[in-house]
Amino acid sequence: MKFGGTSVADLERIRRVARLVAAEAATGKPVAVVVSAMAGKTNELVAWTDGAGAAAPGLTPSDDEYDVVVASGEQVTAGLLAMTLRNMGLKARSWMGWQIPIIADDAHGRARIEDIPGEALGAAMDSGEIAIIAGFQGVTRDGRIATLGRGGSDTSAVAIAAALGGVCDIYTDVDGVYTTDPRIESKARRLAKISYEEMLEMASLGAKVLQTRSVEMAMAHRVKVRVLSSFVEPGEAPDQGTLLCDEEDIVEKRIVSGVAYSRDEAKVTLFGLPDHPGVSSRIFSALADANVNVDMIVQAHARTADTANMEFTVGKRDAARAMQVVGDLKGDLGFEGAALDEDVAKVSVIGVGMRSHAGVAKTMFQALAEKGVNIQVISTSEIKISVLIESAYTELAVRALHAAYGLDQL
Amino acid sequence: MKFGGTSVADLERIRRVARLVAAEAATGKPVAVVVSAMAGKTNELVAWTDGAGAAAPGLTPSDDEYDVVVASGEQVTAGLLAMTLRNMGLKARSWMGWQIPIIADDAHGRARIEDIPGEALGAAMDSGEIAIIAGFQGVTRDGRIATLGRGGSDTSAVAIAAALGGVCDIYTDVDGVYTTDPRIESKARRLAKISYEEMLEMASLGAKVLQTRSVEMAMAHRVKVRVLSSFVEPGEAPDQGTLLCDEEDIVEKRIVSGVAYSRDEAKVTLFGLPDHPGVSSRIFSALADANVNVDMIVQAHARTADTANMEFTVGKRDAARAMQVVGDLKGDLGFEGAALDEDVAKVSVIGVGMRSHAGVAKTMFQALAEKGVNIQVISTSEIKISVLIESAYTELAVRALHAAYGLDQL
Repeated sequence: MKFGGTSVADLERIRRVARLVAAEAATGKPVAVVVSAMAGKTNELVAWTDGAGAAAPGLTPSDDEYDVVVASGEQVTAGLLAMTLRNMGLKARSWMGWQIPIIADDAHGRARIEDIPGEALGAAMDSGEIAIIAGFQGVTRDGRIATLGRGGSDTSAVAIAAALGGVCDIYTDVDGVYTTDPRIESKARRLAKISYEEMLEMASLGAKVLQTRSVEMAMAHRVKVRVLSSFVEPGEAPDQGTLLCDEEDIVEKRIVSGVAYSRDEAKVTLFGLPDHPGVSSRIFSALADANVNVDMIVQAHARTADTANMEFTVGKRDAARAMQVVGDLKGDLGFEGAALDEDVAKVSVIGVGMRSHAGVAKTMFQALAEKGVNIQVISTSEIKISVLIESAYTELAVRALHAAYGLDQL
Repeated sequence: MKFGGTSVADLERIRRVARLVAAEAATGKPVAVVVSAMAGKTNELVAWTDGAGAAAPGLTPSDDEYDVVVASGEQVTAGLLAMTLRNMGLKARSWMGWQIPIIADDAHGRARIEDIPGEALGAAMDSGEIAIIAGFQGVTRDGRIATLGRGGSDTSAVAIAAALGGVCDIYTDVDGVYTTDPRIESKARRLAKISYEEMLEMASLGAKVLQTRSVEMAMAHRVKVRVLSSFVEPGEAPDQGTLLCDEEDIVEKRIVSGVAYSRDEAKVTLFGLPDHPGVSSRIFSALADANVNVDMIVQAHARTADTANMEFTVGKRDAARAMQVVGDLKGDLGFEGAALDEDVAKVSVIGVGMRSHAGVAKTMFQALAEKGVNIQVISTSEIKISVLIESAYTELAVRALHAAYGLDQL
């Protein structure tokens, strides 16, 4: 069982979580619980590290001391939940990353789990003790605290389930994975099941239910993951939620399973780029060297013979850096100018059914055209199509696509 | 170097601490720094544990999960100070209790340090890395976090100094140990030196500069401890403060070194107690079984032949429990009644010179009599005399005694 920050935001919510855990333990199954920091705590801690110099030149948030500070939030929640369960008469104890241990690499601030020797943890659980595990944290082979990046507690939970051979219930502030964001489209439907591949695309493309890496790990280890609401009473949970599973376990096939969107996009346009071999390579090597992740790319020949325009997208947070990098190349490559547009959004449709069905893209472009939404850039993979549009059209586009694929009829 | 909660209360103060540490490191000596939680943080964490059931029947603050929660505060400060020092271009890293390790017993919430294998820590310091150590915490031989009780960071600091063979500078919000509390007597003088024995009595009798256990440990290991103000600029520190040392290292002998007081007292009076052998033993055994610490005791025969009155003092926090215990014994022992008086204070004079000087008590009783202060209970040891008085007279008594022993003339 994994509970996120809003589910453990205060003592009253921690008591609610304790009741859900107690109900699960009453079924007789060994139970491990992964907890996040109380909502807001991680932000407070991160702000302090910024003040202490994490954001200063020469130091980055990947500092190992950053991890020492921010990992403390999960420690607090784990101790409080263990105390609450004991107070209800149950056997429980907290486990920090270094106690299990959850062995992680030393990429501090975004570490990856390498190994979880689960013997001590498993033995404690087999003796009837509920294990309360601090999420988001591991320990390096050097014995230093390492954190797994934002949303890392999801990954902790899936990794623990994989190590112990269990199922993983992610309790969150929504009651499952929806066909799209219900705050935008009230007709959004909860999916009873979704394939790992689709969930991976949904998470990468902007759906914030699960950390992308946790889905990768669930897929790699074939861990059955359920997304459930933590705002239910004990006993209600089993009928709710969304199950992540193999594609073949989904009986009712759909062409499209969901519509995702992200406003964390910025578009860079380079005008009048000389049409030589090696020019693109120069640009994208320089961006990679500056740690800028490039997402969508499109190149179009200009009307004049020897130059082209190029557009690509980056995360909003990297936009200024990307402009700096291309600006530095301007004299060298001899293009005419560069423009930045942060007023864009990426809208995507995702579905494993696309593999075997033609016409998915046609439906998408038609639906957007009917609403007068102009498509700026397109990118596709085997199971998704993404388009970049003007940000103001985001909600309109999401609703149009949700209807066009009949997702409100599920 | 040890810095308490008010010295690291926010990022600006942490930067001030970093400058003091940098100045010390610049002298070329290996430096270890022990830090407390940011002021207020431990109280916040303790309040959460109360809410989660630490204060509930059947669970006590000695719960091991209580320690998991409250130890997180020092972790945060240690990480932030290490980051700040790195940002100034220095080599530094944080050390948690479990990383050094600081091995403690499993009396959670008030654990005692058993051993500090200082090899890894010492090697890191010898390589020029400043060690930033989370105070107040150790780890049991079972690998669980254990905290050392309120003020435990002082003990952490002395223990680290003992393990590494160093001197221990305790930076605090006062600039040393005073002849009495300067908030009560503006003529209080800072002592340049004080013997371990005197400091131990001062700490036990109410002076809040150092945790009692840290003084015991300094005395046992002959660690040179200095109490200094953290509100000085780098470079100023060496001329300031108070040095704890052996009695023979103090050239200027004093009969009395200080006046301490405590308002954390409550007096229990038992009336008409049958004057049989074994009655006192029954009472104090029952109190000990209920974990009530008894401090001062006096027994007086009543005018009628066969009964006596008894008075004893306990900490205010134990007062209700003490009354419960004696109430339960009433029918059995057949005394007439019990009364509780929480309106009392203990005032003490401390000095190693008492051993060789007569008349110290006479001076005390005379000074108090002149001010009309009534003495309720007296207790003495080789180097201190304590009296219990009505709480309202506390300041008056402290000032009268401070003058009577000429402490404003030092």
